Amino acid sequence: MSLDHVMQVLAIMATVAFAVTGVMAVAEQRVDFFSAVVLGVITAVGGGTVRDLIMDVPVFWSLDLQLIRVAVLASIITFVALNFFSKPQIYKWFLYIDGLGAALFGLGGAMKAYELGFAWPLGLLIMGVITAIGGGLIRDVLTGRKTLLMSNEVYAVPVVLGCLLMAIILHFVPEYKSEGLLAGTVFAAALRFAAIYWNWSLPAWFTTQKK
Amino acid sequence: MSLDHVMQVLAIMATVAFAVTGVMAVAEQRVDFFSAVVLGVITAVGGGTVRDLIMDVPVFWSLDLQLIRVAVLASIITFVALNFFSKPQIYKWFLYIDGLGAALFGLGGAMKAYELGFAWPLGLLIMGVITAIGGGLIRDVLTGRKTLLMSNEVYAVPVVLGCLLMAIILHFVPEYKSEGLLAGTVFAAALRFAAIYWNWSLPAWFTTQKK
Amino acid sequence: MSLDHVMQVLAIMATVAFAVTGVMAVAEQRVDFFSAVVLGVITAVGGGTVRDLIMDVPVFWSLDLQLIRVAVLASIITFVALNFFSKPQIYKWFLYIDGLGAALFGLGGAMKAYELGFAWPLGLLIMGVITAIGGGLIRDVLTGRKTLLMSNEVYAVPVVLGCLLMAIILHFVPEYKSEGLLAGTVFAAALRFAAIYWNWSLPAWFTTQKK
Repeated sequence: MSLDHVMQVLAIMATVAFAVTGVMAVAEQRVDFFSAVVLGVITAVGGGTVRDLIMDVPVFWSLDLQLIRVAVLASIITFVALNFFSKPQIYKWFLYIDGLGAALFGLGGAMKAYELGFAWPLGLLIMGVITAIGGGLIRDVLTGRKTLLMSNEVYAVPVVLGCLLMAIILHFVPEYKSEGLLAGTVFAAALRFAAIYWNWSLPAWFTTQKK
Repeated sequence: MSLDHVMQVLAIMATVAFAVTGVMAVAEQRVDFFSAVVLGVITAVGGGTVRDLIMDVPVFWSLDLQLIRVAVLASIITFVALNFFSKPQIYKWFLYIDGLGAALFGLGGAMKAYELGFAWPLGLLIMGVITAIGGGLIRDVLTGRKTLLMSNEVYAVPVVLGCLLMAIILHFVPEYKSEGLLAGTVFAAALRFAAIYWNWSLPAWFTTQKK
Repeated sequence: MSLDHVMQVLAIMATVAFAVTGVMAVAEQRVDFFSAVVLGVITAVGGGTVRDLIMDVPVFWSLDLQLIRVAVLASIITFVALNFFSKPQIYKWFLYIDGLGAALFGLGGAMKAYELGFAWPLGLLIMGVITAIGGGLIRDVLTGRKTLLMSNEVYAVPVVLGCLLMAIILHFVPEYKSEGLLAGTVFAAALRFAAIYWNWSLPAWFTTQKK
């Protein structure tokens, strides 16, 4: 199994995780089947879409709809089997897969920015974050939920640090590209896993309201 | 009168209907003249704009502002004559024209996706839906209203089914392009008209909250 | 110091002002350091980004990140020194610089539309407004704040009138391009300054709710 193959399998896993957690996030509110699928798909592909628009490259799903099909299917299954997915022990698993998804999407987005010659390192970080959290932001805005930016969850920061790690590796040893991608992804995912496991939240001095 | 001519007249009608219902939707809240016009125009052209951005083609109004001018004018008239447009018997008419507009915009967007070679049939459906409801979504998000995706109105589903009908016709008898477009549009509009007339809403088993 | 040089210094000033007021606007709510910086940067560069996407030109910061760096730095400083920036007499200054920023961004956007051959005058006005208020709208939507479009602040109207003034000058005496840009910017900024100073709000007959 080649690296490309591994990447593709991981992208499908990430897409599934984002669609599942996307549908579950909106299921607390009353949404119909159609809206649930739309919102699941937006959660899964929204970030990459915005990234590609800003980068002025064809949107990644415009020619090959495989990931959209995966997202639609995962959203439908989640909608139908909502009771199953809502079980705490099942949901917990998806939180971790979602964290892995954010790491994969984020680092993949940063790598795409690097390959297209975006400015180092800020351009890579920005594109990574947009890819990782853009879809969730659009979903939250469309459903009137508080967005991730207003919560103190440790979600985007691991992606930023993972992208930064990769950016540093690419800068100093550009010949270790796959290794840099791998290291950044593992780092971002591990940090997010730790945040879920130990229930971390951002420290108070890190926010605008100190008391 | 050629087909192109008919299409153009229908596009103008749809734009007017979207601008009018767009301004009326926000008029319940306190908005000033300038915001009302901006929101009316966004309702009318927002969906097509997002569609064109994703398709990576020039935004449809970037070179010919005719439809924008129509939207501005319709928004201004609606703002000035708000009392007239708010009369139930007048507003009812606009609901129907708006439904026709959604069908026209949606099917037009799906056709554009087909002509640009987007994947069949999902690509056509996605582009159709974005064109039909994208402008309204942006308006609702900007004004803090509950978006269409969170209501149980039968609004987007007719567009999806109409696009699906057209996609099937284009697939099996691609030589009947105009007929497919017409059939899909009529079907979507008829379904929406029925939903308005009989006050349909999506059935409970169709939503995430069953009881 | 050449005109280009002046323009660049003004663009940096405008970016700083937008980032500072952007962070301060969200600081009332509880946001963490990372979100504050993201929202400050979005406020500063969001409008120009949307404008460039619609115009189908490379996003202005995709190749040269200077303004993004400025926005990041200004956002960080604002977050750290929030108590200082919140002092009424300091904040007042930023309101004026922000008004100048809106004028500069708006007129700059309109000029870009003119140079790319967008339709006169509506295309220039639309692009000017998007550039001036787009970033703030995205910030407000992401943070659940009431957007500018729903307030009766005199903010966007000065930009529209400034762009209109420039459009008229460009139309009748196209050889006075810099002068037109300058006149429109000064006019828009002066109008905004007056609105801040005398605490203008839009008149009641100008809104949808009359009583």
